[in-house]
Amino acid sequence: MSELRYCPIKGRWAIIAPERRMRPLEFLLPAPAEMPPSPEVDPFAPGNEDRTTPEIFSLPALDATAGSRWQVRVFANKFPALRVEGEVVREGVGLNDSVSGVGAHEVIVECPESTREMADFRVDELLQVLTAWRARIVDLRRDTRLRYILIFKNQGSEAGASVHHAHSQLIATPIIPSVVAQELKSARKHFKRKERCLFCDLIHQELELGARIAIETDRYVALNPYASAMPFETWILPRRHGHDFATADDAELRGLAVILGDLLRRIRWLLEDPPFNLVLHTAPSPHPRSGHPDDWSTIEHDFHWHLELVPRISRRAGFEWGSGYTINPTAPEEAARHLKQADPDGLSEGPPVLS
Amino acid sequence: MSELRYCPIKGRWAIIAPERRMRPLEFLLPAPAEMPPSPEVDPFAPGNEDRTTPEIFSLPALDATAGSRWQVRVFANKFPALRVEGEVVREGVGLNDSVSGVGAHEVIVECPESTREMADFRVDELLQVLTAWRARIVDLRRDTRLRYILIFKNQGSEAGASVHHAHSQLIATPIIPSVVAQELKSARKHFKRKERCLFCDLIHQELELGARIAIETDRYVALNPYASAMPFETWILPRRHGHDFATADDAELRGLAVILGDLLRRIRWLLEDPPFNLVLHTAPSPHPRSGHPDDWSTIEHDFHWHLELVPRISRRAGFEWGSGYTINPTAPEEAARHLKQADPDGLSEGPPVLS
Repeated sequence: MSELRYCPIKGRWAIIAPERRMRPLEFLLPAPAEMPPSPEVDPFAPGNEDRTTPEIFSLPALDATAGSRWQVRVFANKFPALRVEGEVVREGVGLNDSVSGVGAHEVIVECPESTREMADFRVDELLQVLTAWRARIVDLRRDTRLRYILIFKNQGSEAGASVHHAHSQLIATPIIPSVVAQELKSARKHFKRKERCLFCDLIHQELELGARIAIETDRYVALNPYASAMPFETWILPRRHGHDFATADDAELRGLAVILGDLLRRIRWLLEDPPFNLVLHTAPSPHPRSGHPDDWSTIEHDFHWHLELVPRISRRAGFEWGSGYTINPTAPEEAARHLKQADPDGLSEGPPVLS
Repeated sequence: MSELRYCPIKGRWAIIAPERRMRPLEFLLPAPAEMPPSPEVDPFAPGNEDRTTPEIFSLPALDATAGSRWQVRVFANKFPALRVEGEVVREGVGLNDSVSGVGAHEVIVECPESTREMADFRVDELLQVLTAWRARIVDLRRDTRLRYILIFKNQGSEAGASVHHAHSQLIATPIIPSVVAQELKSARKHFKRKERCLFCDLIHQELELGARIAIETDRYVALNPYASAMPFETWILPRRHGHDFATADDAELRGLAVILGDLLRRIRWLLEDPPFNLVLHTAPSPHPRSGHPDDWSTIEHDFHWHLELVPRISRRAGFEWGSGYTINPTAPEEAARHLKQADPDGLSEGPPVLS
């Protein structure tokens, strides 16, 4: 069984998960190559449902003639980092703190076809994916052992994907992850001082300045953050304040599908189909005990859910690892300028001219 | 000129460094391949000194017949993330905080030969490298603009190296990096409560338990930390308390050369010459103004310098990026067991049998 371990020196948690190794010697191997996307060998293709763990959730196919019962399909990861079974045991011995590896690790297959990418999806197809994300969060929130539900997508083997078929993943943990905890703390600190949402302030400032805005719609803003850690890092934020993705209504999800599809096509066109990670940042699960250090139940006013997209076109080397800094050779203002001018639908003439 | 930018949401600094891009389109390309190691094309080889920036420091060749004047040679990075020229300007506009990219970025060539690796070095050769590190730290400490001097090594292109010839790097920054600041805070908190060094306590605990000790010498301990973020992450700590690598004497550096060479050969043998990062963690530069939030001048008792080695045999994917967790499929107890039994000098029979 896997285990969460806290480092009192680094102030961070690691998930020690021997189950993630299929073979004892796997630490000698590079990341597994993506599988070839022919439906016969594709474990996520319609017809191969028996090759996955049992279905947890699905949405019916949008196009009845495509030969698939489902449009989106969710099941548990075969090599989970965390498992649903068991009690959350918190133990300490000397300097060591350990929490048992209870949680959930699910796979969300995003379309029936083996080779289509998220950037190819129509708005109604993207909407189905976002609807499945919302449904899984709402369902898992009922398990009070789980403090946070993280949804993310790795596209391309360099971004960590081991199966080519378009899919996202969900990991629910008995601890609030440090990156999220830091955002919650920053937001709360800002709100306490100003009684305003930090993210709403950021949106207003960036819309006024304009230089780091990539795409604007009536409901959303896609921007390249001032201190972008990676080239072309882009955040999509709803203009209307809301702390929790799970409470977004269908119209809000449809608006998100529109801007997300647009951003993905611009990124694909500009950076030649790069590997990328997409991460949903939303409020933690309500905590059963109020007053507990992890009780963020009063976060409605200060936190603001959003999506973060990071193309994986640069490497983290020793300096980044040892310092916590990142070195980003592409200023966000430059990224925003290119994204704004990107023409993924080929309406302008010729290939992109970047300067 | 590059710039350090603070993200008020993430609580972290990014170095925005357009100078690191040789071409405007470089963000489209993967990391540069390592150069072939023939002396003619090797920019770090003896005879090609005019292809680098001017020499800052060197140590004479140990073996006079090898055709090189120097054993170790230091010069400024040709594509620096930070530059020595200019004043440190700290600016804030709205939510944004910026610090000018003043600092130093140096290359430390570790041996005259184009193809030898650090794991090949004799003790006296490794000692020269460590001596150069110490000399550069002592020299740069005199520049009070610089708050921290980070020394690290990337070996292999997957670990971020763009030149094959064995070298380490130094980056000095006008801000204490967040990873170091976190360690300083953890150490200070522990000392305030217990009047003992957190790292000394860790060494005693781990020596008593034994399960995570990889190598022991009279002066040093190499251990796999309890919450290892990566498979085979290994720290080398001096048994004797000392907060600052720059104050280690020659006998201490020689002891470090012995255990570091041993560890590097075990890692190379076990993991088949993996790419790796090696990072020196030492005290920050004394701050000119006492009482300043970055004043760590009273850190002698609580901090403990050490080396961290991280083989780059797993990838960080979306989950890691979005959460701050890492998923490590190799428990540190398992790593320590393998390292303990490793036989890089071939005294046992046959290849390693890992279970």
